[in-house]
Amino acid sequence: MSQAGEQGTLFVISAPSGAGKTSLVAEMLREDAGLGVSVSHTTRPMRDGEKDGVNYHFVSRDEFEAMIARGDFLEHADVFGNYYGTSQVWVRERLASGRDVILEIDWQGAAQVRRLMPECVSIFIVPPSAAILRERLVGRGTDAAEVIERRLSEAEEECRHAVEFDYLVVNDEFSVALGDLLAIARSRRLRMPVQQVRYAQLLDGLCDRG
Amino acid sequence: MSQAGEQGTLFVISAPSGAGKTSLVAEMLREDAGLGVSVSHTTRPMRDGEKDGVNYHFVSRDEFEAMIARGDFLEHADVFGNYYGTSQVWVRERLASGRDVILEIDWQGAAQVRRLMPECVSIFIVPPSAAILRERLVGRGTDAAEVIERRLSEAEEECRHAVEFDYLVVNDEFSVALGDLLAIARSRRLRMPVQQVRYAQLLDGLCDRG
Repeated sequence: MSQAGEQGTLFVISAPSGAGKTSLVAEMLREDAGLGVSVSHTTRPMRDGEKDGVNYHFVSRDEFEAMIARGDFLEHADVFGNYYGTSQVWVRERLASGRDVILEIDWQGAAQVRRLMPECVSIFIVPPSAAILRERLVGRGTDAAEVIERRLSEAEEECRHAVEFDYLVVNDEFSVALGDLLAIARSRRLRMPVQQVRYAQLLDGLCDRG
Repeated sequence: MSQAGEQGTLFVISAPSGAGKTSLVAEMLREDAGLGVSVSHTTRPMRDGEKDGVNYHFVSRDEFEAMIARGDFLEHADVFGNYYGTSQVWVRERLASGRDVILEIDWQGAAQVRRLMPECVSIFIVPPSAAILRERLVGRGTDAAEVIERRLSEAEEECRHAVEFDYLVVNDEFSVALGDLLAIARSRRLRMPVQQVRYAQLLDGLCDRG
């Protein structure tokens, strides 16, 4: 139950691919009704089964570049010729209504968000060992050597930025990692500056029986 | 699993009497093996069923005052003519071994601890309403009016200092409040400065496949 003045938390979650981030975030959203995930804008073509406004907001390059020019994005990137970005409007409105937002982005996006919203809480997820990460990235069987090589380099590059994050979660057992992520989200809501607004009347009543 | 260099967290937990703090802390200790509670020193006489070193370390006034003079205490207080205090040695050794410590003390003790160990994490627990607190403090039936009056004033005084704490937990449903406290303890262990030490080898391995 949100009251005026209570502000949600922006959680930025990054990980090398193969760490299990997407499944963990999907389960967090199911378990914790206070969390919402931001829908990104992209210029890449819509794929079969995707819905505009659900998987992505699909826009043209012209529209996307106009949004960049207006400073509409909290973060954006050009990935192999397609733009991807997070609009500030939805994120800030949702936070202002006292609810939390998760952004699933890479370390570069996380760095952009930290500059604009230093009060965000950033979490880095890693697999339990380098060997397991390698297995997951290599093991899909059908990929060309250079594709595998690129994935490995990207994963290493991502991990080199782990220490810039506020929290580190090791995804060894899924349920433990999920519990860790939910504990971080839950504990953020219990901080005094948040609770002081939420329970202002209760605290007043307890200090003065009139 | 602690490794050299990993430092535990000191949790300071305060509440007005009647908030359910003692039961909540007892349950935290049962659920989370990483938590330990500090055994206080006191000069009050041992009661039937109490054990020295378990319920309290029972010492004479002279010994207690010598400990004060040596700066042995993290916090101490004189409550109706009896001294109570928390020795620094045990707390600091346990923290240095990577384990967490809970101190159950009042707001004045919490303020003393914050000065000596500003990195401590402080949590204030409140009942769900002033009416319920009053019921619990008044409702024991047998107490004299002035005893009840003193309890109420002390509870109000305690609550006036709630905002000095890092977290606020409302004990409406016991299991929810317990979950809140456990989430705070769990999330503190996931912060990057702690995890970076604990998982130094893993992070090295992920950044460089050699």
